[in-house]
This record gives sequence, structure tokens and C-alpha cells, in this order.
Amino acid sequence: MTEDSEALGEFDRIARFFAPLAKDAPGAFGLTDDAAALPPLAEGQEWVVTVDALVSAVHFLPDDPPELVARKALRVNLSDLAAMGAVPYGYTLALALPKDMAEPQRWLAAFSRGLAADQAEFGIHLLGGDSVSTPGPVTLSITAFGRGPRDGVLRRSGAAPGQDVWVSGTIGDGALGLRVAQGLLSGRFADLADRYRLPAPRVTLGPRLAGLATAALDVSDGLVQDAGHIATHSGCRLVIEAPLVPISASVADLVSDDPDLFAEVLTGGDDYELLFTAAPEAADAIEAAGREAGVSVTRIGRVQSGAGVEVLDHHGAPLDGLTARGWRHF
Amino acid sequence: MTEDSEALGEFDRIARFFAPLAKDAPGAFGLTDDAAALPPLAEGQEWVVTVDALVSAVHFLPDDPPELVARKALRVNLSDLAAMGAVPYGYTLALALPKDMAEPQRWLAAFSRGLAADQAEFGIHLLGGDSVSTPGPVTLSITAFGRGPRDGVLRRSGAAPGQDVWVSGTIGDGALGLRVAQGLLSGRFADLADRYRLPAPRVTLGPRLAGLATAALDVSDGLVQDAGHIATHSGCRLVIEAPLVPISASVADLVSDDPDLFAEVLTGGDDYELLFTAAPEAADAIEAAGREAGVSVTRIGRVQSGAGVEVLDHHGAPLDGLTARGWRHF
Repeated sequence: MTEDSEALGEFDRIARFFAPLAKDAPGAFGLTDDAAALPPLAEGQEWVVTVDALVSAVHFLPDDPPELVARKALRVNLSDLAAMGAVPYGYTLALALPKDMAEPQRWLAAFSRGLAADQAEFGIHLLGGDSVSTPGPVTLSITAFGRGPRDGVLRRSGAAPGQDVWVSGTIGDGALGLRVAQGLLSGRFADLADRYRLPAPRVTLGPRLAGLATAALDVSDGLVQDAGHIATHSGCRLVIEAPLVPISASVADLVSDDPDLFAEVLTGGDDYELLFTAAPEAADAIEAAGREAGVSVTRIGRVQSGAGVEVLDHHGAPLDGLTARGWRHF
Repeated sequence: MTEDSEALGEFDRIARFFAPLAKDAPGAFGLTDDAAALPPLAEGQEWVVTVDALVSAVHFLPDDPPELVARKALRVNLSDLAAMGAVPYGYTLALALPKDMAEPQRWLAAFSRGLAADQAEFGIHLLGGDSVSTPGPVTLSITAFGRGPRDGVLRRSGAAPGQDVWVSGTIGDGALGLRVAQGLLSGRFADLADRYRLPAPRVTLGPRLAGLATAALDVSDGLVQDAGHIATHSGCRLVIEAPLVPISASVADLVSDDPDLFAEVLTGGDDYELLFTAAPEAADAIEAAGREAGVSVTRIGRVQSGAGVEVLDHHGAPLDGLTARGWRHF
């Protein structure tokens, strides 16, 4: 059923837009073969693999610039690799474009420019792909490959009572940035909208946490819910002190105008920061890892026996409202 | 933008339908983490990776049984691995289901049964996935991983003048099977429709051809066009003797009733047989590989200097009509 004139377009598209993205990965064979080969690993490494799918009008807006769609799609995958402590190497791409798309060449040119920009920024390569047409919206799926420490990748399941809870960067920029992008908050905070559109995966920090962090993930669903994932899979309780949660100057401005937004900071998604736990003795090494990676790291709480997540205000009282907002699977 | 009630469904869906498919792959971590780890390779192996996307109403029919959709999606990827000489190990899955799908649980139950059936048949595992909703049609993308010989995977580029052209199994069942499935040919040939719906990737033959074949691919676009891919990437000419092309008894019946169908046999797609080239001295070893794999192998032509593909009839005269039908990118 794929035997139509569109197939001619596929060979051209691959040669023009995608083969240049694969030229520096010897095992991609210029995208001319049925599959790609991953290079040999150094001693003590293993391949780490993650996949994310994005659909237009669900995960991005139909009129979002294709460059940004490409870069965000890559970055959410790189964030997953970072959360496992892996150094990104490359990715495969499955792309479905609407049959009736206006100017698909222009869209593809911009999309592949976005991929090229982030390939250069993160030192990764396109390894293979499939390009098809769809009667539906633009849909893309990226499978990303990284090199992690053999038998030592970071998991969600290693947190234990007595350990500290840490987070990288600042929290809430993604969630409030989405509101700015939607025109629901002042355009003065365009920096937050940019942060929402183009997250910064913590690829330099994640690999440095291998051997230090006991559990880790990237904050994509929201700080409170993602803390819940660690609690669930580690079989313990995470206590977060809200006043310790790091926020940017723009988020601080917005929250001081409308304190109700703070709940959104703690439960909104799309931060792509690393949330992790570690023994108290690792604190100095974690601070050093953050300095080397050029990413701030902040201790925001502790692990206790029990289950679930508790968020405490500056009096040490539980912020109960959050569980109703951020909580989905308890 | 993924912060909606659908997300609750995602955790449940993963636990119910997909985690059981990952239980025998230790590095999949039960699908609870951000990424999966691939196991260490034996000496002399390398990872081979391929990706295919399928869209409802483009690559399969909306009312095709979900079991078959799942199995065909896996098999086209396994066929790519076989063409590279790799032994399949596992796959990641990105699945977009329509928001307004009637009975998604029933669809998912059937779809995951199909995956489970082929996991058992081919000894592979689900390693990771992403499940999202879409305003469009069912869309899935599979990235499959196999273990191939290090620096020795089969490519399209190694054919040279003086070598033989071989094909596995029989040709044309897929193309005529599609016509049977569409009701355009007699229902007496349901075996062909089954072959179209559920191709048999040559996973036992492909790895045995590593070191014997000089170039290989799987026949998905049609024998003549795929021979053209080898010709292009090897910089030579492939001559195929039409009377040598192996066909099944059902295809022979159909062609004897309507000789015009023979062009469709040679140029139609979806065979998923292996087309490969080899030095004449390798012939005995190739026959032995076919016997060990339980797959017939047939010499159908030779490689010459020059370019493109020539198909000869039983008089040795060129079958010119084929180039107009099967030819797309010369």
C-alpha cells in the first residue's frame, strides 16, 4: 500500500534533509541501508535507550516553528538519557507528515535545521529513520541512544530513608512558561515561554550523578508527581520543603504577584530538571558535580520511611492542596 | 500539554498491556524508568538498529485485526534486521491512539496479544515505549534491535560484477495477496492474502548469510526496484532471469490464468524475502545456509558492470515493460 508516487519523494527527502544529519555517524551508512550499526562501547559502558512520541496539537502547537518542534523532541529524549546517567550518542526518527501539508519541503527544511542545531549542541547523530505520510497530524517519534555506566544507570528505585532529595536548576519555568506562551500571563516573562518551548536537558549533570545519586528521573510531569514516582518505585516517602525549591527570578516575580501560582510551580510539568536522591555524605560531591556541569543543584528535602510525597510550607505544615492538583496515580 | 486525565490511563495501560511484554528483558526495568539498558554483547558482535512507522489507512486497513497490525509492524522491522545479518533481540514501541477510539482497552488487549505472540515466536522483548493520544489515526513506530557481526553487517553496497543474484523463498505472494485481500482476485488464494497480512521475516537465514553474501536487502518495494537499490549502491548492474524467479503454486496458478500478473509479481512489494548477491564459489555454502534456516534459496541472475536492472525473459530478451512499472528512482 506504500507503492505510490509519494515513495519517490521519500528517497529525495532522505537524501536532501536527513542524510546530511547522519554523515558523521559511520554506522548510519548514509541512511542507505535497512538498518544502522551502533559503535563499540568502551569497557564498563552499556547502551541506554529511550523513546518519546509527539503529536501536533497534543504535544506542540500546529503553528509552532518546526525548528523548535525538532529541538524539543530531541531534548525530551536527551533529558531521559540524562536522568539515567547516560551520555547521548544518537537517535532514530520516525516522522509522519500530513498528506495534504502545505509546503512540506519548507517544513522539512526548518525541521531538519532544528535537528542539525541540536546535533551540534549536544554532539549527537541521526542514525536511521522512516518517513511516511498520514491523514492525521504531524506525528514524530524519536528513539535516543546514550552510553551509560554498565550495571550502574540511575533508576527510580534506589531512594532510601535518611537520604536527601535534590533538584537541578529551577522549577516552575516550564509550567508558567506555557501560560505565558498561551497569553495567560504577562509577555514580560518571555524568558519563561522560551524555557517552555526549548527545555535544557541536563546532559552534563546526569552522567556525573552516576555513582552519587541513589535514584533519579527528569521532572516532566511536575515536581510533586515525579517525586511520587521515586517514592513508589523506591518504596519510601519523599518530604519536600517548599521554601527550599529553587525558582527563577521571573517565577519569583509572578508568584509574589499571585501566590496561588506557587501550586502550579510545584505541580506543573515540562521542567526537564533532574530530581534525585543521595546519601547525606554525597552532598559535597554533588555540589562539585553541579559546578563541573554548570548547573545549580539544590537540596529540597529528605527521604523517610512510608509512602507518597509530603510538601511542607515554611512553618513545616503540610501543603495539602497540592495532592489534589498534582496527584494522579495514588 | 500532556497534563490531562488521559495520563492516568497511560500508567494503567503500561502496567496492564505493556509491562508483561518487557518482563524477560532485565534492562527494560519493567518499563518503570526513563530508559532501558541493552545487555552486553559477546565478542565480535555489534548492535544493529532499524525503525519503521505504520499509519492506519496508509500501511494497514482501519479494520485490520489489531493482532495482525502488531505482528506485521514487528515483522517488517525483523525483516530489516535479517537483511543486515542481525539476530533480533528486542524493540521499543511508540503508539498513538485516537482520542475518540471506541473500546481502546479491547484494541490494546488484542494488539498486545499480537506482540506477545511474535515475541514468543522470534524470541524478542519489548524494551521501552511511549503511549500517547492523537486526533488522527492509529500510528505506531517500532525501533528494533538486533545483534550483528561487528564490522560485518550486510549492506547494499558490496555487489560486484561476476557475482550471482539470489533470493529467498518465493516472490509475488505479497503483491498478489494484497489483491486477494482487496477482493480483486479469487478467494481461493486466501493463502496469499495471509502471506500479505503476515509476512515471514527471514530471521534464521539473514544471520547465516553474513560472511557469504556481498550485498543484501529485504524485498519490500518489489523485486525489480529493490534489485535497483543494490545496483545503485554497489555501482553495478543486476541481470535477473525472469524464468528463474521462484513463485509459489498459488502465484503460478494465477499467472497461468492471467500472464499479465507476472509483471506484478516482479514489481509488487511486501515480499519480505531476502535479495542478495554472492561470489559463485559461495553457492554451496548458501544452499547449506538455506537448508539450515529452513528457507529455500534460488539463484535468479548475475551481477555485471554497468548500472540499473535488466530482467530477461525465457528467450534471454529484455522485459522492457517492467522498467516503467517497477522503476521509480532512476
